[in-house]
Amino acid sequence: MAQQHLDPTDPTARAVTGDALAGYLRGQATEFLRALRLHRETGGGQNGMEESVDAARALRHSARRISGSLHTFRPLLDADWSEAMRPELAWLSGTLALEHACAARLERLLLALHRLSGSAAFPAQSAASAVGGRVTGAGRGVPASASGRGTGPAAPSTATAERGNLTVGAAKAGALLERQLTLARTRAHSTALQALGSSRFHAVADKVAVLASEVPLTPAAGGADLRPLAAAAGERLNDAVAGLPLVTAGHPYNAEALIHGLSPDPAPHPQDGPWHQVRLLLRLHRYAGEVLHGDDPPLDVRLLAAGQALNLHRDASEAAAAAASAARTPRIAPATAYALGVLHADQRHEVEAARFAFQQSWQKRTVGTP
Amino acid sequence: MAQQHLDPTDPTARAVTGDALAGYLRGQATEFLRALRLHRETGGGQNGMEESVDAARALRHSARRISGSLHTFRPLLDADWSEAMRPELAWLSGTLALEHACAARLERLLLALHRLSGSAAFPAQSAASAVGGRVTGAGRGVPASASGRGTGPAAPSTATAERGNLTVGAAKAGALLERQLTLARTRAHSTALQALGSSRFHAVADKVAVLASEVPLTPAAGGADLRPLAAAAGERLNDAVAGLPLVTAGHPYNAEALIHGLSPDPAPHPQDGPWHQVRLLLRLHRYAGEVLHGDDPPLDVRLLAAGQALNLHRDASEAAAAAASAARTPRIAPATAYALGVLHADQRHEVEAARFAFQQSWQKRTVGTP
Repeated sequence: MAQQHLDPTDPTARAVTGDALAGYLRGQATEFLRALRLHRETGGGQNGMEESVDAARALRHSARRISGSLHTFRPLLDADWSEAMRPELAWLSGTLALEHACAARLERLLLALHRLSGSAAFPAQSAASAVGGRVTGAGRGVPASASGRGTGPAAPSTATAERGNLTVGAAKAGALLERQLTLARTRAHSTALQALGSSRFHAVADKVAVLASEVPLTPAAGGADLRPLAAAAGERLNDAVAGLPLVTAGHPYNAEALIHGLSPDPAPHPQDGPWHQVRLLLRLHRYAGEVLHGDDPPLDVRLLAAGQALNLHRDASEAAAAAASAARTPRIAPATAYALGVLHADQRHEVEAARFAFQQSWQKRTVGTP
Repeated sequence: MAQQHLDPTDPTARAVTGDALAGYLRGQATEFLRALRLHRETGGGQNGMEESVDAARALRHSARRISGSLHTFRPLLDADWSEAMRPELAWLSGTLALEHACAARLERLLLALHRLSGSAAFPAQSAASAVGGRVTGAGRGVPASASGRGTGPAAPSTATAERGNLTVGAAKAGALLERQLTLARTRAHSTALQALGSSRFHAVADKVAVLASEVPLTPAAGGADLRPLAAAAGERLNDAVAGLPLVTAGHPYNAEALIHGLSPDPAPHPQDGPWHQVRLLLRLHRYAGEVLHGDDPPLDVRLLAAGQALNLHRDASEAAAAAASAARTPRIAPATAYALGVLHADQRHEVEAARFAFQQSWQKRTVGTP
């Protein structure tokens, strides 16, 4: 974040102490509880309401921020409480993220199939974007809801009609992906609902409720300077970025992302790992900036762009893996497999494009003390 | 070509008249006859000698230059003679180019398959590069010759062993492509030999033999200035380049080349046509420069790079089409089709990369009077 706000040699710089951390955590805990209440009121996504989707997103949003702050400012917080809390928050946000991820992945892949078929008629809002919408006919290739954001009851599917614009192989590939990812999404939805009804979740929610009024700071934390810990988060990010192959990534069309594209390993490409790690460290760095700056964080456009590039990188990487995985379905037609191969390669090139975009955002900035 | 050499306002500029054109055509005709003699002495490629490959290349080289010069400087040459000569030279160079193109395409695709399999052990010279080598077992998947450049007799194939490094789908895709492109190459080889023994060819060769001593210039051509005609060739190139989507091409990862990647049309992508056209106009522009500058053409690195980018564009475009065509072979396994899909997309991205490279070479140059 902008160094001029935090120059340690600036005598007018606002003091940022453990009290600011406590305020941030109380605020995020309050957000969490508000989102939880909203989620319960809207039926936990059972009715396919947009509010329910937003509530789940807000729950993840605050869970990630609490967890990230516990990590970055660990020395200032009660160690036992912090160690017990973090894995539970990670479990919760991970569980809640899965349904959304499946829906977003399907939408990404169907849009790509239409693009690759030269089908200009595809609407921007596909059935697959009905995140949190009512899930019907899961596992039988029947899309969930025709409404873009689950704002209404399930209407007749447009996705099937849209496939009329696709070539035969692409249409079959789209149907296969829809079947597999809709099934995965339905399972993720059930898992999320079960999780939110579990005693494990109630224990987390109880702890967050306490956090909303009472933050377990260490005795010395109240007046302690947060900036060295926030700076350390920035340094961890810088170190991880320094380990990325940015010179290669900065050369357009370096063709690195598709190496091993025909490898038999069904796991995501190992080359993606360091980029995923940087994505997480960038998020921690951003949250640390939020703690320090409170309601008035400076806007760092490059950092935002870098984070968006890494989100794209993650999404394309997982979409490519889903296409490769679908191609291993037994007894598919060669034309279906061919379309999935083109789709896989297309998404791997999106991975490469995202690395290039990250390199472009990053090259002229250095992460200072947040 | 470099304007400073040809500034029409420069009173010291060397006069470039029809006599220079006559000298150039005589020289190219002599090269043609020399290559033809060498080709006959080496058995027309029947013995797989490197010299024979070189001779065929030299034949194409001079045939293209004669044909191109007849086109650019048409008003200075006997019209009937010129009109009769050009299609025959185009037929000849096209026929001779096909065998080399099949071999180069196979090599490109096999190298790509190895790259996509993460197989680093693949040698730079594959069996597929045995251009003009002895063709054995064509149509049955037996590669032509293990020697990289046809410099020796056919040795046991290494390509089959190399496929051991490929994953199952990639290996099958490689075998299928090898079978299809080796068959195409064998046919092209036979066609070329038949062409070189035909009365049609002998008629062309006779005309070229006359050209080597006697160039049919129009009466006024001897003292006429070549530069306006050469400049017109440069303008045709500039006009065609102006019609290319260079703004898009200059944005890395614009994903344009793979649009229609899943289109059912087996023909090459129509979007490639204008680029292929620019490639031909660039070649005419270059030949016109050779006519004007004789043995001392100025080196234009950007123009060379632009031409190489367009050659790559053509090669990748045709390789992508070959992969798509192979995927339509009946009864192939889904894993084979998947690998061909990845390969197709990979080559279409090479197409996109070549457009980017062309844009980069072109953006800072303007074609002046050659």
